Amino acid sequence: MLNVTPLNQPESLSKMAYNAIRRSILSGDIKIDEIYYEVHIAKNLGISRTPVREALLELSSQGLISLLPRKGFIVKTFSRKDIEEIFEIRSAIELATVEKISQTSSLLEFNTLDDILTSQCRAAADKAHSKFVKLDRSFHVALGKLTNNSRIEIIMQNIRDFMHLMGLHAVELRGRMDAVVNEHKMLLHAVRQGMIMESRVLMNYHLQQSRNAVLQTYVTPSSHSKA
Amino acid sequence: MLNVTPLNQPESLSKMAYNAIRRSILSGDIKIDEIYYEVHIAKNLGISRTPVREALLELSSQGLISLLPRKGFIVKTFSRKDIEEIFEIRSAIELATVEKISQTSSLLEFNTLDDILTSQCRAAADKAHSKFVKLDRSFHVALGKLTNNSRIEIIMQNIRDFMHLMGLHAVELRGRMDAVVNEHKMLLHAVRQGMIMESRVLMNYHLQQSRNAVLQTYVTPSSHSKA
Repeated sequence: MLNVTPLNQPESLSKMAYNAIRRSILSGDIKIDEIYYEVHIAKNLGISRTPVREALLELSSQGLISLLPRKGFIVKTFSRKDIEEIFEIRSAIELATVEKISQTSSLLEFNTLDDILTSQCRAAADKAHSKFVKLDRSFHVALGKLTNNSRIEIIMQNIRDFMHLMGLHAVELRGRMDAVVNEHKMLLHAVRQGMIMESRVLMNYHLQQSRNAVLQTYVTPSSHSKA
Repeated sequence: MLNVTPLNQPESLSKMAYNAIRRSILSGDIKIDEIYYEVHIAKNLGISRTPVREALLELSSQGLISLLPRKGFIVKTFSRKDIEEIFEIRSAIELATVEKISQTSSLLEFNTLDDILTSQCRAAADKAHSKFVKLDRSFHVALGKLTNNSRIEIIMQNIRDFMHLMGLHAVELRGRMDAVVNEHKMLLHAVRQGMIMESRVLMNYHLQQSRNAVLQTYVTPSSHSKA
């Protein structure tokens, strides 16, 4: 008998389907409030329905989509409670993050954060919303990495897709991208200078502003009871 | 053909093995710094080696044990870095927790916490270390539940076994159990009275003291470079 491992093609196809669908959700190509069907996705990707089904189950278990009857799905929208929960976690973790890294800032390397900030400036000028949100997420995850606490990094990674989706529409609010760039700049300055309390205050302000932008986007006045 | 689901016995046996081994680790029956073997565990439990192997892989992936050559394993001990990481997470999450719940304390139900505290008093008087640590974990997880933030609860649940293992030896330090009961009492009083800053300060003090006790237990002066 030949000593080779089976190719296990279905698994690899479902992983490819997963990546393709996730990418389309995070870029906004797959739209909120629109129903999509397994069969159409499969046709579009040029593959059979089984791997698409597997990919959808995975995305659903991560909370990115809701499955509907007749093999349809929609991108998850967020209730007021979802938004408040995510921002509570972010606030707990990210205030502790800037507090810690501003204490050790003289030993740290901020090049990655500088580069991200420069690209964010450009994306804001170009009104490249999707690119901007991607960079925004990278900025916060890169801050988390500087803590050198693998468990903080994991929590930040676990909520990164939610941060992204929530930001996707919030940055379309007039002036929000420029404001974010400004908030990031001030924050990074404070952290780098080792200004511990200022870093906490600025991060808190930034998260409050982001939370308000997200709530304004997702929770319309008439749907306040949605949560 | 009969429409019955196969019993899938191996899975259920490995789950039973998992629970039994995990329980022995958390109770301290399976000791730190001692090597155990798959074959002996299987003999002890009266089952075959396959389910035991599966249980050990699961416990290893959760970080509770380290697998050794020749199918042995040891309970994971913690480096200074592990301890600092876990306490950083706890501090970020639990300070935010008491801050939030002291803001809404008049609307909350503290019966569970009162009951746990009463039992902790008794366990301390009886010098029932293992029981005490179990109650300690319950106290902190119950505080997390009061935030009504499912994501905070999940983070607390995810680190509960580490909290438990770290506490298991720390509470054997002379006087530590009485001190913990006292710290919990003061903390609960402040939270209940809606004293926001006091709650943060008391939680911070409690976690600092616990962290020091754990470091004293796990990191001997000569092993400071272990991290």
